[in-house]
Amino acid sequence: AGAGINQVVDVSRAPKGSLYHYFPGGKQQLVSEALREADAAISASFETVFAAAVPIGQRVRTLFAKTADAIEASAFTKSCPVAAVTLDLDEETAPVREVCQAIFERWVDVITQGLQDLPPRERRPVAQLILASLEGALILARASGSRSALTDVGTALALTLDARLPGRRRGRARHSR
Amino acid sequence: AGAGINQVVDVSRAPKGSLYHYFPGGKQQLVSEALREADAAISASFETVFAAAVPIGQRVRTLFAKTADAIEASAFTKSCPVAAVTLDLDEETAPVREVCQAIFERWVDVITQGLQDLPPRERRPVAQLILASLEGALILARASGSRSALTDVGTALALTLDARLPGRRRGRARHSR
Repeated sequence: AGAGINQVVDVSRAPKGSLYHYFPGGKQQLVSEALREADAAISASFETVFAAAVPIGQRVRTLFAKTADAIEASAFTKSCPVAAVTLDLDEETAPVREVCQAIFERWVDVITQGLQDLPPRERRPVAQLILASLEGALILARASGSRSALTDVGTALALTLDARLPGRRRGRARHSR
Repeated sequence: AGAGINQVVDVSRAPKGSLYHYFPGGKQQLVSEALREADAAISASFETVFAAAVPIGQRVRTLFAKTADAIEASAFTKSCPVAAVTLDLDEETAPVREVCQAIFERWVDVITQGLQDLPPRERRPVAQLILASLEGALILARASGSRSALTDVGTALALTLDARLPGRRRGRARHSR
């Protein structure tokens, strides 16, 4: 939010006129479009990871390992753009909040769809837990400049979810008798 | 990072000279000191929550409910200052990264100390998972302008940890025979 539109123009080396030609809504529109680009790539990545026919714990480990690869490739300078914009919202950028909200909801939907091995009513809360843990672990990884926060949190989450699943299944089987 | 020191001076209504008198290190020092203030309050809150002699799931629920109260009280405009600074790090503020890293490590330590009912080697990874989930859920709550992301993620995490605990204990008992 602190970067003025003139700074954006300077860095882009494009004339200011073409910025307003392509983004008549100014900085808010520019940020929103950038978030939509990021959304498409990240949604596709979630779909690929959660389509794998492996136990939930393994899908979670893959998700965190892939995310660790990505942040390491950026030398720990880039993490989730939607999270960064969300934590930087102020009065001026308030309308962008709804864009962030819609993207997070879509990601929860995509992960929920990939949790078919859980009882239906548990899928959405577990998907929210997976997304929240991933976003938080990205912050810890960026602060520490190390991928271990991501792989450690991914492993801890995978172990807890794997431990929960059979116990829950036994619980359901017992109730249905 | 986008806010220049002159903007800070304008908002504070203090003379610029007194800013440099109290913060000779300029913006980096100001940010670091602000983070240390936040750290003290948040560390104390973690200690209180995890000192309670209740099952781990209940401690986790309390933590997320208290955090939901705090973000709701700010009308969803304030979340974790250490997370916000971490996601806003750039070349200019790189030295502040170590301050963020040290604070997150201290919080993981405090939560680890409060997980005495878990087997020793599980305490630290579970503490990291709790902190990551909390930080991520704060982002989701801020984007949605609703406390339910925090309470939902807290409940899902509490259920998975409660389900894991007895299963793990059985596992350990079996191995020690």
